[in-house]
Amino acid sequence: MIHTNEEILEMFEAALQQVQTPEEPELLYAPIIYSMSGGGKRLRPVLLLITTEAFGGSVDKAMPAAMAVEVFHNFTLLHDDIMDNAAVRRGKPSVYAKWGENVAILSGDAMLITAYKLISGLDADRLPRALQIFNDMALEVCEGQQYDMDFETQATVTVEDYIQMIERKTSALLSGSAMIGATLAGASDDDVRKVYRFATELGLAFQLQDDMLDSFGDEALGKKIGGDILEGKQTFLMVQAMSRASAEEREVLRTTHKSATLSDAEKIATVKALYEKLDVKHATEQQIELRFERALSVLDTLSIEKERTVRLVEFARKLMGRKK
Amino acid sequence: MIHTNEEILEMFEAALQQVQTPEEPELLYAPIIYSMSGGGKRLRPVLLLITTEAFGGSVDKAMPAAMAVEVFHNFTLLHDDIMDNAAVRRGKPSVYAKWGENVAILSGDAMLITAYKLISGLDADRLPRALQIFNDMALEVCEGQQYDMDFETQATVTVEDYIQMIERKTSALLSGSAMIGATLAGASDDDVRKVYRFATELGLAFQLQDDMLDSFGDEALGKKIGGDILEGKQTFLMVQAMSRASAEEREVLRTTHKSATLSDAEKIATVKALYEKLDVKHATEQQIELRFERALSVLDTLSIEKERTVRLVEFARKLMGRKK
Repeated sequence: MIHTNEEILEMFEAALQQVQTPEEPELLYAPIIYSMSGGGKRLRPVLLLITTEAFGGSVDKAMPAAMAVEVFHNFTLLHDDIMDNAAVRRGKPSVYAKWGENVAILSGDAMLITAYKLISGLDADRLPRALQIFNDMALEVCEGQQYDMDFETQATVTVEDYIQMIERKTSALLSGSAMIGATLAGASDDDVRKVYRFATELGLAFQLQDDMLDSFGDEALGKKIGGDILEGKQTFLMVQAMSRASAEEREVLRTTHKSATLSDAEKIATVKALYEKLDVKHATEQQIELRFERALSVLDTLSIEKERTVRLVEFARKLMGRKK
Repeated sequence: MIHTNEEILEMFEAALQQVQTPEEPELLYAPIIYSMSGGGKRLRPVLLLITTEAFGGSVDKAMPAAMAVEVFHNFTLLHDDIMDNAAVRRGKPSVYAKWGENVAILSGDAMLITAYKLISGLDADRLPRALQIFNDMALEVCEGQQYDMDFETQATVTVEDYIQMIERKTSALLSGSAMIGATLAGASDDDVRKVYRFATELGLAFQLQDDMLDSFGDEALGKKIGGDILEGKQTFLMVQAMSRASAEEREVLRTTHKSATLSDAEKIATVKALYEKLDVKHATEQQIELRFERALSVLDTLSIEKERTVRLVEFARKLMGRKK
């Protein structure tokens, strides 16, 4: 009997509640509790647990790894908020804003160690392989963050550069989670490679859609439009546009966000007009479809019965906000 | 045949040379290479390796753990330098000063993950226990750093508070290293507990001596005197003095370093005069002796032959700068 994704989420939240965090020193541990109880969709642990169950593994046995990936994810947010100077996280003050930089650095470090402490709770026979995947995943996430920061000052960011960055920054945690889930269930190397590809493609589709919604989301749905444009951030739309633009258009794309004369609305309109003209919206939609379809089609090639992949399909659709 | 401590150090340096660090992204990995090649006495890995050999373990098999504790130690320095705003480390610019804060945060994170990647290279049958010791040790070091930062604004720091802080900040890495070394050699739980006590006491003796030398070191030996006093730092001498001082003297101890009228030399002389008056120098010397003797006497109680503890005795004496 395979659990529903909602049941898996409930099991995860219940397990997380049971984790004891020390009380002292308060400035080390209170930010960890604050950060872990701040909500979030728990995407990565849920993916890990439904993947393990798809391969006949036990949710309980995989729980230490599921908690580890969620703590790791929250650790990255904590340190990213320092580096990005971000005051708000999930509608509340970031740890960095609330407690200051030193506390955010050190409690983040303690969170990363806590993630390892949690994953060390796996059965000894499964630990080495899970740990190896976790280590590689964690380093890739750091690499992705560094490339993302590099892009802020890099003269040219190609579409390929950008995809490689988000494969690390966004996909690696999803693909690592799926691989650990499969490994813990004793899946074959071939199946582990396939769930890696599933989650990598899904992560790319998700990130590209996120980029897309920043420019072309539905304001009626409460989506604030144009944040990335105003920050001059490299997104899939921007790097696509740059690759297709004339020298003159590239200059506009490069400088509009820094304009001292244009209003925010005018900046957004200027860049979006170029995105439309260069057919970037359409190209991005195509990429999203391509990646999403690739992700789903990998699932059909797994060695397990098709009905066991149902939760993974549901997970993917829900992540992308789709009915089918 | 037991190696000498110098041979152990050479074996360690050679193994460290073999570690491959990726080249890209450069801003993530270059600071790690810079930090690891900046020298340092390699105290923790050497202690780990001589402990393992004392119990009949293999230096080669323990090497992944030895590298892990050294990388971890350097990671803590990297992040501490951000928190302490320290521009110089081992006579060279700190990573923080050389590359800036964001690079120091993120490459530090990657170093911590690298430490785990290294320890994951242990034989699978020894990994879980070694990892558990490593995790607990790593969290204790973070706790120690937080308590140390707390002390900067804490109204009263007792001698007990101070000892508990350095047990975490200084001793934990030494005792964790010794415990991992013993565990990897298959030492009994009783022996592991004993090497923990050996290294804990030794770490305390070492830190108290370091505190002592800041005020009463030999300037003729090139030791710069009074740095801690001018920073208003909590040290064993300061917390001892505060516990013995009159209300009036406490006020002097608390405020001298902030004086706008005294010169640096006068500030140092004022505080040192109170240390002498309150017999703090003598009390500290006694504590150092007590801790050092306790450390050595624990070694006599180990289940191994006394001649196998010789390298540990040598290590302890050298650490304390003693001939005998």
